[in-house]
Amino acid sequence: MTSTTYTSAVFALETMDVPGGTETILRGGRHLFPLLPEAFAGVRRIGVIGWGPQGRAQARNLRDSLAGTDIRVSVGLRPGSASVADARTHGFTEEDGTLGDWLAVTADSDLVILLIADAALAAHHEEIFAALKPGATIGLSHGFLLGHLRATGGEFPPGHGVIAVCPKGMGDSVRRLYEQGAEINGAGINSSYAVHADPDGKATDRALGWSVALGSPYTFRTTLESEYRSDIVGERAILLGAVHGIVESLFTRYRLTGDDAVTAYERSCENVTGPIARTISQAGLRAVREELDPAGREIFDRLYSATYGPAREIVAEIYDEVADGTELRSVVLAERRLGAREMSGIGGSPMWAVGAEVRARRAERALPVDPFTAGVFVATMTAQVDEFAERGHPWSEIVNESVIEAVDSLLPYMHARDVAYMVDNCSRTARLGARRWGPRFQAAYEQIAYPASELPPNEALLTAFDTHPMHEALAAAAKLRPSVDISVA
Amino acid sequence: MTSTTYTSAVFALETMDVPGGTETILRGGRHLFPLLPEAFAGVRRIGVIGWGPQGRAQARNLRDSLAGTDIRVSVGLRPGSASVADARTHGFTEEDGTLGDWLAVTADSDLVILLIADAALAAHHEEIFAALKPGATIGLSHGFLLGHLRATGGEFPPGHGVIAVCPKGMGDSVRRLYEQGAEINGAGINSSYAVHADPDGKATDRALGWSVALGSPYTFRTTLESEYRSDIVGERAILLGAVHGIVESLFTRYRLTGDDAVTAYERSCENVTGPIARTISQAGLRAVREELDPAGREIFDRLYSATYGPAREIVAEIYDEVADGTELRSVVLAERRLGAREMSGIGGSPMWAVGAEVRARRAERALPVDPFTAGVFVATMTAQVDEFAERGHPWSEIVNESVIEAVDSLLPYMHARDVAYMVDNCSRTARLGARRWGPRFQAAYEQIAYPASELPPNEALLTAFDTHPMHEALAAAAKLRPSVDISVA
Repeated sequence: MTSTTYTSAVFALETMDVPGGTETILRGGRHLFPLLPEAFAGVRRIGVIGWGPQGRAQARNLRDSLAGTDIRVSVGLRPGSASVADARTHGFTEEDGTLGDWLAVTADSDLVILLIADAALAAHHEEIFAALKPGATIGLSHGFLLGHLRATGGEFPPGHGVIAVCPKGMGDSVRRLYEQGAEINGAGINSSYAVHADPDGKATDRALGWSVALGSPYTFRTTLESEYRSDIVGERAILLGAVHGIVESLFTRYRLTGDDAVTAYERSCENVTGPIARTISQAGLRAVREELDPAGREIFDRLYSATYGPAREIVAEIYDEVADGTELRSVVLAERRLGAREMSGIGGSPMWAVGAEVRARRAERALPVDPFTAGVFVATMTAQVDEFAERGHPWSEIVNESVIEAVDSLLPYMHARDVAYMVDNCSRTARLGARRWGPRFQAAYEQIAYPASELPPNEALLTAFDTHPMHEALAAAAKLRPSVDISVA
Repeated sequence: MTSTTYTSAVFALETMDVPGGTETILRGGRHLFPLLPEAFAGVRRIGVIGWGPQGRAQARNLRDSLAGTDIRVSVGLRPGSASVADARTHGFTEEDGTLGDWLAVTADSDLVILLIADAALAAHHEEIFAALKPGATIGLSHGFLLGHLRATGGEFPPGHGVIAVCPKGMGDSVRRLYEQGAEINGAGINSSYAVHADPDGKATDRALGWSVALGSPYTFRTTLESEYRSDIVGERAILLGAVHGIVESLFTRYRLTGDDAVTAYERSCENVTGPIARTISQAGLRAVREELDPAGREIFDRLYSATYGPAREIVAEIYDEVADGTELRSVVLAERRLGAREMSGIGGSPMWAVGAEVRARRAERALPVDPFTAGVFVATMTAQVDEFAERGHPWSEIVNESVIEAVDSLLPYMHARDVAYMVDNCSRTARLGARRWGPRFQAAYEQIAYPASELPPNEALLTAFDTHPMHEALAAAAKLRPSVDISVA
């Protein structure tokens, strides 16, 4: 079990009740921005390396939060990077020294935040390490590099602090909610933080300052190892891979049982990204079932019972392969095999053809939660929660990585486009993982869960769901941020 | 490229033309049985360890072929093995010394053929190695143990010959066709052989003798490494995993485009295991297309073109993971996670419910090759052939592991029951692999291949198929055995 207790010399911390104990957390907000110079003591320059979705969001949030201080945020890009123009558009320029070559920016920064793609990080981390100035702190936003160093026998360079602040949402959400935070103090994406190396004793406050500057409603503690596992498993399961498998299998199921394509789409993809995600975000997981009528609950119960077992089996398999390094090894092999070749897309299957039509008629109709779909989705989400709990993750990490990131960050974006689009446009590591595991969920549900859905519900499973400690953990996390729906452009 | 040339002091070898060169092969047959004592010079006792499908078949074939010689074949079983009664039924008894404890039989044998399950082999090979008598030869029928030793840093014990004879068909076929060979000399399952360690210089003739005694129509040379890769990849692809993915995706496709369940089953599963497999077995791969009418060929061409790319991509991914050890690692993790728990079955999906009805009306109707299904199946098979060729496998291995084992061994059994039954009842290593990869083929075909099947055919791909060297290699292999269809009880 990861320790979740810590102290800060700068910020006033709180204690949050979670199942079986408490976690120390930092509640964020713009009123804390005046404390940032103290949290960043010794840091005059922050270099954000990379301009992908996270780099683009974090560099801007950090700069805006640190406006008026003498801490400068610069963006470092690879020679020939196609992102130079966009970075300039957002006010990072060579002229004022806030845009430059990645190794030059690295050499000039006291905190170097590495947000380049996983494959680039795997290929170039040694050059970056070599360019660090003495005592500079290395910042990460997920644990991929740790996994890669373990797999290849590498190490973080000695004498440097290594910290991570990991927003539990995609980069676009990190920026969008931060902007909404200007009106509603505390709107944002929760983050975990980890201290992996702390040679000068200032790592925790630097990490907390970074998280506050990103706009995190609350920040909880984890380890890089725990973050790595939950992050990579989560995107292969309920955050991306499983969602794709779920909606593909449900669409086919509904078509085969007589629905036209539009109805089948509304009952599957549209239902998950719309009413189900919204209900969970606003009222929690139990509310999905409670808001159904008795006939709907009976369907929910049968599907929950039929789905939980196969879902748990696959999540456990993913977890084993991630923890073992096998999953990361497959990413390395895929990158090597594919080379510069594009991965084929998955957005061509028949269901996506009707997405536009469904989205076009949203204004005319309020879609209710579909009990069949809801049972499948909630069972899969709960299976991931249970697997993470069994493997000893902190409760904040469990509910953020299994529930909050899904319903408050990813699903709203999937609602604006569709699930396949998001799978085809996420990071390569996530995309490769979703393509490996999504079909496993799809096949298991079609071949095992749906045929079993005619059976009576499993009362023991349903009682476990009803009395599940995750509801308490979710409610505690929900109290820490204002009720705000992300507004997806 | 694996060397395929060798010499024998006992048997007269032949040279077979294959694309780009020749392979040395041994044509089998009962007329060679009198040479077996010479081939087994120095071997008085053969111990067959294990009574799974291969052990059950090989122990009986060896005993029957060696009847009248002074070479005794004994079966060794684990203490408490549930197979004792069945071994006795087939004439192996403690009383005459042909049935005993596995370590005792090992200690008493000059050639110890290890046919226990992969998981048992992984767990117990060290005990078995320790029990070997000095100079005894270790026999294997696939390369799993080599992969396992590599993954765990182990080694074969020095001073012992290590040979493999690997029938390119399941155990039941190895016995069934051997029995048919009593009437039609030369009926049987082809085998590859490998010499991994040869301290006394007699390894090749021992392996050839073993293969002849099993009834192999012809025996070709490979390496344990090459055998391991093609075996594990093949069962994950066209032999098992891909077949499952193909028929599930086609059944759904046909249902969604208006077929009733019986018709959809006949066009998918029944078509692959029946007319398509039969046509390939009797007349080769090109015949599947040539026997279609022009409208059918046009459909075949579009589906072949749409399927080949996604199929090749997945086969390449499987190959990478097998060669890297990642795939075997996942099997080890699964065995550890599942422990004694049963894997869930995949035979519950809607399509299998109509299988019995389809089989019952076989007598009334001669089902023609379905061009849509045929394009998908032949493209997948060719993709595997091409991947194996690119990775340097001998042509005999390529066509036996990709085509002949499918159409002459596995598909006839799948025709008698169904594909899901075979997946749920094969070895655990194969079963785990089919469950990992079958869904990948299913999803890729549903999401990428079938949507692309409206496009015009890819003429370059079709020309490559038409002029493919595999046709020549298959024809050469076909000449080496009598034309006999396996009779599945």
